[in-house]
Amino acid sequence: MGGDHAPDIVVEGVDIFARSHPDVRFLVHGDAARLSVLMDKHDAAKAASEVVPAEKMIGMEVKASQALRQGKGSSLWNAVQAVETGAAHAVVSAGNTGAYMAIAMFRLRTMEGVHRPALATRWPTMKGGYTVMLDVGANVEADAEQLVEFAIMGEAFSRAVSGEARPKVGLLNVGSEDQKGHEEIRNAAKLIREAGVDLNFHGFVEGDDIAKGTVDVVVTDGFTGNIALKTGEGTARLVGQLLRESLTSGPLAQLGALIAYPALRKLRKRMDPGTFNGALFLGLNGLVVKSHGSANASGYAAAIGVAEKLARSHYREEIVSNIARLAHANAAAAASAGNAD
Amino acid sequence: MGGDHAPDIVVEGVDIFARSHPDVRFLVHGDAARLSVLMDKHDAAKAASEVVPAEKMIGMEVKASQALRQGKGSSLWNAVQAVETGAAHAVVSAGNTGAYMAIAMFRLRTMEGVHRPALATRWPTMKGGYTVMLDVGANVEADAEQLVEFAIMGEAFSRAVSGEARPKVGLLNVGSEDQKGHEEIRNAAKLIREAGVDLNFHGFVEGDDIAKGTVDVVVTDGFTGNIALKTGEGTARLVGQLLRESLTSGPLAQLGALIAYPALRKLRKRMDPGTFNGALFLGLNGLVVKSHGSANASGYAAAIGVAEKLARSHYREEIVSNIARLAHANAAAAASAGNAD
Repeated sequence: MGGDHAPDIVVEGVDIFARSHPDVRFLVHGDAARLSVLMDKHDAAKAASEVVPAEKMIGMEVKASQALRQGKGSSLWNAVQAVETGAAHAVVSAGNTGAYMAIAMFRLRTMEGVHRPALATRWPTMKGGYTVMLDVGANVEADAEQLVEFAIMGEAFSRAVSGEARPKVGLLNVGSEDQKGHEEIRNAAKLIREAGVDLNFHGFVEGDDIAKGTVDVVVTDGFTGNIALKTGEGTARLVGQLLRESLTSGPLAQLGALIAYPALRKLRKRMDPGTFNGALFLGLNGLVVKSHGSANASGYAAAIGVAEKLARSHYREEIVSNIARLAHANAAAAASAGNAD
Repeated sequence: MGGDHAPDIVVEGVDIFARSHPDVRFLVHGDAARLSVLMDKHDAAKAASEVVPAEKMIGMEVKASQALRQGKGSSLWNAVQAVETGAAHAVVSAGNTGAYMAIAMFRLRTMEGVHRPALATRWPTMKGGYTVMLDVGANVEADAEQLVEFAIMGEAFSRAVSGEARPKVGLLNVGSEDQKGHEEIRNAAKLIREAGVDLNFHGFVEGDDIAKGTVDVVVTDGFTGNIALKTGEGTARLVGQLLRESLTSGPLAQLGALIAYPALRKLRKRMDPGTFNGALFLGLNGLVVKSHGSANASGYAAAIGVAEKLARSHYREEIVSNIARLAHANAAAAASAGNAD
């Protein structure tokens, strides 16, 4: 029921996805009457889904704390709970982000060894693929150990969605030299190198490396990641607007644009946030995928695709075993510091 | 002598600028033999310039500490020193940024009341103008008071280059609500509101507000600003590359692009970093402008234009009087805290 165009695009998104993935089943939580009408219009969605009636919905303006107090029985709460009980392998929603994260953290709890969950998103690159970036907003700050945990979680996410066996991991910084940036980032690099975690670690990357695709996973704190993400989105929109202005600036430009229309349409599709829709709320005991609130049906289907790929992957086991190495290294470091006293 | 295409584009840039500003004079520091050959090819530059021979140059790979120890007598050192002695109103260079900032700080010192200088740059916006953003890399961290100093300096810069009497100032954050973000940012907002500094303060802005042009001045620490700047540049390059790929993807697309060529050329010019070239190293006892190392001649002329506008403005007096209000408010707060003890 969440997002700007729900529940219509949700059912349509399920329909699109179900056509190419006949083995995936859906529990669709929400207003049963409205959902039934929509299901009747979408055969594939109807065949793949069970509608689970919810007595209420959490609006986009509801605060996280309020959602925790009063959210029980809502479609969002029930969808998260289905993951908790094992009725579903993953939950996807385009609803209220703060409420969604709060309910997911409250019901699913963080994985053992993970201090804080992180929000991970994908970014198109010049190489044609995607860069995974995290954290993009779940935590305003992150210390060195948390950054390493983000690196471990982001790497497993990247492998699951891209199929790349050894995704390259970089720490976002203001330069590539060892002495650059905040202490936390320098310590995180040191920790990755010394703790024996299983990562293909590239070192530091800079802001322009995100779109270049220098690495497969860009690790940062939630403050920097959120600002980088929104700055990038804003710049892409600016260039898009300037392009539109240029191509409607006179009859010749309009004619040229008309002739090049199929190519420009392909460009638009390539840059459409929908095609890389699906942020992952990583580090919980359950798969939690967030769709953009403004996603259309195919964008929503892309977010379902992220959930499906993760659900079929070994990302959890990979995270658990890598986090254990980190914890082991930390314990050893603490013990040797104790002996030295 | 600094930058990728020096000294050629420097002399060409002086030539371009001198044609439209016959009342501006130049001291051109560097290799006298090479500069003389170039001057002979550019009448306007030659008429407006005096070549000041320098015995050496600071290469792009030289570290800041090394530049301070061994830089004396170099073209960069001499150019900065000309501002110190009053021989020049401003210095412009496309050379080694770290060496330039170090020499400028060492020779010119920070203005009274300013804790740390900041690097300010401009960003094109959807409204057609520019947003000033600072700090984009001079300081990795900034406390609340420093952020307020950046706001004061950026506002004076914005007024000088845009002519806007009361530029709107925003603090970069991950949300617009009062309780969002780091403590330093929340305290900076409080300080601006309570210290009686003379600013048209908008409050918090997010990453996408930079390209939207929501405010005229975006204030942040050098870590976040550097990453936002480079992420934006990287995204703009990505969209540009995808556009080129689309418009060369087939004969129809190529024909369309050919017909729309004048419009696309205009777009390219609009997005060309050269047109908003000229970062300002703010907070020193002297005007220090940094051109992109890869700038072409018209980009270099744009950087000269920034220096000229600032030199003719009252930006220094405005900063001094506003910083004094901040210092006064801080002293009053300290005194009242003392009384309360």
